[in-house]
Amino acid sequence: MTGWLEAIDRLARERAKAGLTRQLRPRAAGDSVVDLAGNDYLGLSVHPDVVAAARDALDAYGLGATGSRLVRGTTEAHADLESALAGWLGADSALVFSSGYLANLAVVRAVGAVCDLVVSDAYNHASLIDGCKISGIPVKKAPHNDPAAVETMLRDHPGRAAVITESVFSVDGDLAPLAELHEVTSAHGALLIVDDAHALGLLGIEGAGGVAAAGLAGATDVLVTATLSKALGGAGGVVAGPAAFIRHLVDTGRTFIYDTAPPPAVVAGVLAAVRVARAADDRRAELARRGARIAERLREAGFDVRDPAAGVLSVPAPGPEAAVAWAADCRDRGVAVGCFRPPSTPDGSSRLRLTLNAGVTEADFANALKVIVECAP
Amino acid sequence: MTGWLEAIDRLARERAKAGLTRQLRPRAAGDSVVDLAGNDYLGLSVHPDVVAAARDALDAYGLGATGSRLVRGTTEAHADLESALAGWLGADSALVFSSGYLANLAVVRAVGAVCDLVVSDAYNHASLIDGCKISGIPVKKAPHNDPAAVETMLRDHPGRAAVITESVFSVDGDLAPLAELHEVTSAHGALLIVDDAHALGLLGIEGAGGVAAAGLAGATDVLVTATLSKALGGAGGVVAGPAAFIRHLVDTGRTFIYDTAPPPAVVAGVLAAVRVARAADDRRAELARRGARIAERLREAGFDVRDPAAGVLSVPAPGPEAAVAWAADCRDRGVAVGCFRPPSTPDGSSRLRLTLNAGVTEADFANALKVIVECAP
Ligand SMILES: Cc1ncc(COP(=O)(O)O)c(C=O)c1O
Ligand SMILES: Cc1ncc(COP(=O)(O)O)c(C=O)c1O
Repeated sequence: MTGWLEAIDRLARERAKAGLTRQLRPRAAGDSVVDLAGNDYLGLSVHPDVVAAARDALDAYGLGATGSRLVRGTTEAHADLESALAGWLGADSALVFSSGYLANLAVVRAVGAVCDLVVSDAYNHASLIDGCKISGIPVKKAPHNDPAAVETMLRDHPGRAAVITESVFSVDGDLAPLAELHEVTSAHGALLIVDDAHALGLLGIEGAGGVAAAGLAGATDVLVTATLSKALGGAGGVVAGPAAFIRHLVDTGRTFIYDTAPPPAVVAGVLAAVRVARAADDRRAELARRGARIAERLREAGFDVRDPAAGVLSVPAPGPEAAVAWAADCRDRGVAVGCFRPPSTPDGSSRLRLTLNAGVTEADFANALKVIVECAP
Repeated sequence: MTGWLEAIDRLARERAKAGLTRQLRPRAAGDSVVDLAGNDYLGLSVHPDVVAAARDALDAYGLGATGSRLVRGTTEAHADLESALAGWLGADSALVFSSGYLANLAVVRAVGAVCDLVVSDAYNHASLIDGCKISGIPVKKAPHNDPAAVETMLRDHPGRAAVITESVFSVDGDLAPLAELHEVTSAHGALLIVDDAHALGLLGIEGAGGVAAAGLAGATDVLVTATLSKALGGAGGVVAGPAAFIRHLVDTGRTFIYDTAPPPAVVAGVLAAVRVARAADDRRAELARRGARIAERLREAGFDVRDPAAGVLSVPAPGPEAAVAWAADCRDRGVAVGCFRPPSTPDGSSRLRLTLNAGVTEADFANALKVIVECAP
C-alpha cells in the first residue's frame, strides 16, 4: 500500500491531465469586475436596506446564533423571516436552514418517511442528489424535463412516490414544466418537490417564484425549497409547505436539529431583502430586457442561445478548451462569467453560463456584452 | 393509499406519544436568560472586535457572498481566514465551508477516494454519520472511545481505512483518546479524522484545539474538521490538513463546489474571533474554574458528574420526564440548559447538558448554579 498522500497526488495529476483542476480567486471588496457569474440576480446583497437590517441585528444579537435552532439558535429574526417567506410563497409554513444545500438534504430525507420511491430529474442539483443518497429511498432518474417519462414511472409504481425537480435549472437556466408535472403527480397521489433556488425573486407575481408562477402556491402535495443566497443576496435555505410537514422537519430533520442556526444578522438581512424583492418589479423588468438583449446579440454572433426563463443564460461553446479560453479572456477584460465543462455539465457539452444582475450598471452591462462578443471563439 | 398528510400526521401523533415533539422558542435580542445551553464557549459572538470586523466587512462587501467559492464567493476575507486557521491549527492548509455539517460531509466523502473502510465512533455526530452514508464507503461502528477495538478492526482489514472521532464529544463532553487512536491508525497506515468542533478555542496552547493538545498538529495522516459556530461565535466550518488533500476538496468536494460561500461579514467576524481566541487564556482559565465548580456542586447534590474536559458537562437525570421537568424549571427561572433524552442520547440515558460560556457574568453564573441545584429532581 503506497502512502495516502501519494494516492491523493496521483488523483490530482489525473484531474490536471483532464483539465479538471479548479482554482480559487479571492476578490477584493469593491473590485471593478462586472459580475455576470454570481447569483445576486436582483443586486440585493449590497442593497442599503439589506445591509442596514443586517447591521442592526449584528448590533442587537452579536455574530453567531450560538446553537441549534432547537437550543439557543432561534431568534425573533428567524421567526419573522419564516412568517415572511411563508406569506410570500403562499405556503402554510416555512422553515429556515443554514444553507439551501442542507434544506435540500432535509426535505428529501423527510419524504422518505411517507414515500418509497424518488423520481429525480436527470439535471437536478448536487444537493438533491445527495439528499436522495442520504434518504436511502430507491431513486429513479427521469429524463430531463419529460413529464411523459415521469408519468410512466409513476404508473408502474404501486406505492407513493416523490418527484423532484428544479424550477429554473441552475446550469442551463431552462424552465421545468411544473404545471404538467403537477398534473402527473397529483393524478398518481405522488408528491412534487420543487427547488425554486433560481426562480425565487425572479418569476411570479411579486417574484414569489416558479412554483407560484405555475399556479401551484399552497398546493398541499407540493413542497418548495429555495436558497436565500441568490436573488435575496444573503445566505441560508428554506423549505415551505403544509404545516404538518414543517413540523415533521422540526422534529426529525437531522440537518435542522444538528446544525447551528444561521446568524441573526444574515437572517435579518434576508428578511429586508424579501420586502425589497416583493416590490422590485422594476428590477425584474430590467433583467428581462437585459436577458433578451444578451441572447439577441449572441444569436447575431452565431450562437444558439435562448432568451432566459429567469436569470441564467447558457451559451454553447465549441469545446472545453474554447469555453475556458473564452471565460479567461472575459476575465482579463474585467468581466466575470461562468464556464462549465464536462463532467460538471449534465449533458456533457461545454458552455458559458451568464447570469443577470440588476446591481450592474447599464454602462457596465453594455461594455460586458461587448467584451463577451469580442472574446467569442 | 391514504393521503400523505394523514401519514405525516400519524407519525406526529406517535412522536407526541413517545414525548419526542420538539419546540422552537424564539429569543429576543438581549433577553435576560442566562445561557448554559448554547456553544458560545468564549462569549465571542458578542465580542466588540468580532462585531466590528463583521460590520466593516458588511459595509465593504454587502451581505451574501453571491456565489460558490469557485465562482464569485471567495473574497480576500475567506483567504485570510483560511491562512489564519491553518496557522492556528498548525496545519499545512485549511478550507472554509458554509457550515461544520457540510465540512464533515465533504471530508468523509473525500477520503473515500483513497480509503475502502471507515471506522466510526459509536457516539459520532449526525454530520459524520451522514458523511459516511453519502460517501458510500463501508462503515464499521466502533465502541465509544475504545482504541483497542479500533485496533482489532484495522488489523482485520487489508486495505486502507479512515478512523473518525470527535475530540470532545458533543453530548457528553468527554475526551477521545486521540494519542492512542493515532498510535493505532499510524501503525496500520490508516487516516485519523478528528472533528474538533467542541475543543477548538478551548484546549491546547492558544486554544488550538484537541488535536493540537494531543500533539498531533500537522501530522500528515490526520485530518481536522471544526465548526466556526461554537467557541468562535460565528458560523461556518473548516477542514484542515495536508495541502494535497485540501486541493482534492477544492476540485471534487460537492458540498464545497455546489454551495454558496459563507457571507464575507461572517468570515471576517470569525477571523477577528480567531485572534481574540488565541489570546484568551484568561477566558479559558475562567471556564476551567467554572466547570470544576458546577461539577463539585452537583456532586455535593448527589449527582454523578465529572469535571468537564472542555466546555460541556453531562448531568445524569433519573429518567426522561425528570430531565424534561428539570430543564423546564430552570428555564422558568431564567436559565437555559440543554436536555437530552433517547433517542437523541447515544447511550439511551436521559441527562441535562450544561455548557460553559465566558460571556456570562460571575453573578449570573452563581445564580444559575443555584437555580440548577434547586430545581434538581
Ligand atoms: C438549484 C440549487 N439548489 C440548491 C443550491 C444550494 O444552495 P446554497 O448555496 O444555499 O447551499 C444551489 C446553489 O448553490 C442551487 O443552484
Ligand atoms: C461535533 C459536531 N460536529 C459538527 C457540527 C455541525 O457544525 P455546524 O453547526 O457548523 O453545522 C456540530 C454542531 O453543530 C457538532 O457538535
